[in-house]
Amino acid sequence: MRGTGPQVEHSGVTPELEDLFAFLRFPSVSTDSRNAGDVRACADWLIGKLQAMGLTAQLHETPRHPVVVARNVHVEGRRTVLIYGHYDVQPVDPLALWNTPPFEPEIRDGKIWARGATDNKGQMLAHVLGVEKTLREEGELPVNLIFLFEGEEEIGSPNLAAFLEAHKAELKCDVIAISDTGMVAPGVPTLGYGLRGIACCEATLRGPKGDLHSGLFGGAVANPATAVARLVASMHDETGKVAVDGFYDDVRPLEAWEREMWSKVAGVSDSEFLRITGSPGLFGEPGYSSAERTWARPTAEVNGIGGGYQGEGSKTVLPAEAFVKFSFRLVPDQEPGDIMNKVKAHLEAHCPPGVTVEVEVGHDGKPYVADPHSKFGLAAQTALRKAFDAEPVLIREGGSIPIVQTFRDILGVDTLLLGLALADAQIHAPNENFPVENFEAGIRLNQALLKELAL
Amino acid sequence: MRGTGPQVEHSGVTPELEDLFAFLRFPSVSTDSRNAGDVRACADWLIGKLQAMGLTAQLHETPRHPVVVARNVHVEGRRTVLIYGHYDVQPVDPLALWNTPPFEPEIRDGKIWARGATDNKGQMLAHVLGVEKTLREEGELPVNLIFLFEGEEEIGSPNLAAFLEAHKAELKCDVIAISDTGMVAPGVPTLGYGLRGIACCEATLRGPKGDLHSGLFGGAVANPATAVARLVASMHDETGKVAVDGFYDDVRPLEAWEREMWSKVAGVSDSEFLRITGSPGLFGEPGYSSAERTWARPTAEVNGIGGGYQGEGSKTVLPAEAFVKFSFRLVPDQEPGDIMNKVKAHLEAHCPPGVTVEVEVGHDGKPYVADPHSKFGLAAQTALRKAFDAEPVLIREGGSIPIVQTFRDILGVDTLLLGLALADAQIHAPNENFPVENFEAGIRLNQALLKELAL
Repeated sequence: MRGTGPQVEHSGVTPELEDLFAFLRFPSVSTDSRNAGDVRACADWLIGKLQAMGLTAQLHETPRHPVVVARNVHVEGRRTVLIYGHYDVQPVDPLALWNTPPFEPEIRDGKIWARGATDNKGQMLAHVLGVEKTLREEGELPVNLIFLFEGEEEIGSPNLAAFLEAHKAELKCDVIAISDTGMVAPGVPTLGYGLRGIACCEATLRGPKGDLHSGLFGGAVANPATAVARLVASMHDETGKVAVDGFYDDVRPLEAWEREMWSKVAGVSDSEFLRITGSPGLFGEPGYSSAERTWARPTAEVNGIGGGYQGEGSKTVLPAEAFVKFSFRLVPDQEPGDIMNKVKAHLEAHCPPGVTVEVEVGHDGKPYVADPHSKFGLAAQTALRKAFDAEPVLIREGGSIPIVQTFRDILGVDTLLLGLALADAQIHAPNENFPVENFEAGIRLNQALLKELAL
Repeated sequence: MRGTGPQVEHSGVTPELEDLFAFLRFPSVSTDSRNAGDVRACADWLIGKLQAMGLTAQLHETPRHPVVVARNVHVEGRRTVLIYGHYDVQPVDPLALWNTPPFEPEIRDGKIWARGATDNKGQMLAHVLGVEKTLREEGELPVNLIFLFEGEEEIGSPNLAAFLEAHKAELKCDVIAISDTGMVAPGVPTLGYGLRGIACCEATLRGPKGDLHSGLFGGAVANPATAVARLVASMHDETGKVAVDGFYDDVRPLEAWEREMWSKVAGVSDSEFLRITGSPGLFGEPGYSSAERTWARPTAEVNGIGGGYQGEGSKTVLPAEAFVKFSFRLVPDQEPGDIMNKVKAHLEAHCPPGVTVEVEVGHDGKPYVADPHSKFGLAAQTALRKAFDAEPVLIREGGSIPIVQTFRDILGVDTLLLGLALADAQIHAPNENFPVENFEAGIRLNQALLKELAL
C-alpha cells in the first residue's frame, strides 16, 4: 500500500527533505511479495532522480528485486569511489505501535519519522543529494563515482554476490563507502573500520532411545539435558574466557591507540552498556572494557538451549535428547573454519559420559578490519571532521556485515563505514526516525568525502 | 462407549475370567467426562459382585467418581487388612494401534488383552476373587477385611485423601496391601517395600531486560542460557554425585542384605538397564549398581531446560532469560522440605555473575520404606512363595506412589506392594495385557496373604 493521501505541507521543508519524503513514501518492503511492485517503483524513482542529476543510471534485473547502478563520466587517472546503499526496508509490523503511518513521513522534534528514515533511505539519499549539490555547485565531481543501490539488503542480499561477480569490471574501484552503521552518540562522527566474523554450530546430545520416567530410571543413565549443560559449561572458564583449546591463538591484540581512544568514546562506556542492556551486571573476558569485549574480542555465545519438558509446571521426564546452538563471534585473524574445527574437537572431547554428541556446522563469515589510518581512512576522518565540526572516533563493531566481506572478496577493496544512525533510531521497529541534522550532515559528509578521497 | 457386542465364547474360560471380562468391558476412563456414566456403571457392577459374595458393599460419592468400600463382618481381636485398588483406567488413544478393541477383552498367547487388564482391574479383581474363593471354601475369612476401590487413580486420586480423613475410623486397619506395581520378571514373586520421594523446583535466570543481538552485545554481558548451563553443571561433581551441600546427610545407607539380594534379582541387572533404556552407556553415582541407583539412592534430574532460539537453523540472539526444571528423587531419611532448602541455597550460591536467579518450588512427596522382615512383611513373603512356588525378591521402586504415603500419613499403617505387572504389560499404552497365569496367581496370592496375615 503506497501512501497516496494528500501531501502534508511542512513550512520550511527544504527541497532535499521533499526528495527524501518522496523516497520514503514507497513501501519498498523487500520480504513481502505483495510489495514487489512498490520496490520496483522505488527503484524507478531512484533512476529518475539520478538521471535528472546528470548521472548515467541503470536498473539491473535480479531474480527478485532490481539493483540500481549510477555513475558520472569516469576520467582516467582519478580515484574511483563506490558508494553502496539499499532502498528496500523492513516490514512495519506491528503497525498499531506507530505514532504516525510508517509511509507518511513527517517531521516532529527535529526528526524525520518513517520506515526507512535511518535504515537506509535517509543515509543513502544524503549521499545522492551530496553528489547533486556538488554537481550543481562545481559542475563535476572530484572522483569517478559509482552508486550501487540494492533492493534486497533486508532479506540478506541473496543476489548481490552474483551481481558483483557478473559486473566485476564495471564496478572496479579504489574504495567503498557505506553509511548504514551507527554513530556512538549524537554529534559524534564515527568511522567504523572493523567487524567481527561469525561461526555457528548446533550440538545435539542423545541418551536413551526414548524419553524415560525420571523416577524409574533417574540415576542409572546419563540425562542429555544435564549433559548438554555440562558441555556448555565446559566452553568457558570461571573468569569468562573461552576454554576451547587454541581459541585465542590467532587473535590480533588490541593496539594501544585503540584502547586509548575507545576508553574515551561517548556512549560506549561500561555504565552505558549496563544501562542499555538492563543486565544485572556486566560480565565478560577479564581485562577488557565492554567496548573492547564486543568490538575486538571473540566470544562463544549460546543462542539457544533446549531439552525435555518446556511447558508450565513439572513433568518428571528424563529426556532422550537435548540441543545447544552456539555462535562464535570472531576477530582478526581468526579463521571461521579453523575455529569450527577447534570447537568440534572440544565438544567431542568434553561430551559427558553416557551420551553421544553430534555437531552440525552452520553458516560463517570472516572478521573484517581495515586500517583507519590508511590514506582513505584519513580522508574519511577529515570528511567526518568537516561534516560534523567535531573530532571523529574510530571504532569497530561487534556484529557482522556480510556485504563488507563480500566486497573485499570479490572487488578486492576496503570499505569505509560512515554510519549516521543513532541508538534510538528504532530501525527494524515501530517509529523509526532520523534526525534532520544527521540527514544534513550526511549531505555535507558526502561532499567532503569525495573531495578528500580525490586527493 | 460400552462394549455391547455379542460376547465372544472362549472354550475353557473359567468363571473367574468371565468375571474379569465383564469388569474389563466397562470403559471406565476417569479422565474423560464423556465416560463418567461408564465409570459409575463399573462401580455399580463391583458393588453387585461384592454383595453377591456376601460382603457389605457401599458406594461413596465424591466430587467426581465414586469410591467403593466393602467389608466382611469384623470380629474383635482379628487382624484388619485393607486392600486397595482402582477400577478406573487410562484413555485408549491411539486407538488405531490396538490389535483388538480395548474394551472387548480376549485371550491370545496366554494373555488377557484389554485396557485395564493389568492396570488395575486384573490385579484388583484377583483379590476380590481370592476372597470369594476363600468364602466359598471356608465360609469365612481369617481376617477383618476392608476393600477400598477408587475410580480416580489415573487422574491423581484428587479426592482420596479427603475420603480417608472423613472415614478414618471405619478404615482403621493393621496393614494395607496393594497389587499395582511390577514384578521384576515373569514368575518371580516380588515384594516392594520402598519408594523414592520427590521434590521439584524450577529456576529462572534473568539477564538483560530483553533479548539482545549477540553480535552487538555478546561478550559484554552474561548470557542467561550459558549461565543456566553453568548452574546445572554445578549440581553434580565429575563422577555423577549430587554436589549440593548436605544432600546426602540423611540418606540411609543400603543394608548388606539389600545389595546382596538385588545383585541377584533377574531383570534389573546393569545390562538389562542398558538394554531397556537404549542408552549409549550407564552413568550414575559411583559404587552402586543400576538397581541401587534407582531404588535406594537420591538424584538431581533435569526434566527440562530452555532458553533462546528453539527453532530450526540459527538466530544470533542473546536471550534475556533461561530456565531449568529440576526434580530430586529422595530416599529415606531425606525430607523434601530440607532438601529443597539446600537446593535453593545451592542455586543462589552458585548463580553465575551477571544474572539473577529465581527459584519456584514445586510439588513434593516423602520417600517411603517399610521393613520387609516385619511380621507383615514376612507374611507377605510367605504368601508370595506359596502363590508362585518360587522364592520372592524384595525390592524398592524408583518412582513415587503418593497414595502409599497418604495411607501412612492418615491411617498410620504400612503398605505391602504385591505387584503382578510385567514389564511388557503395556500399561497406559495400546495393547495392554495381563498373563492368565498372573491373574490366577493373584487369586492364590490373596488367599495365602489373608491366611498369613491372620497368624
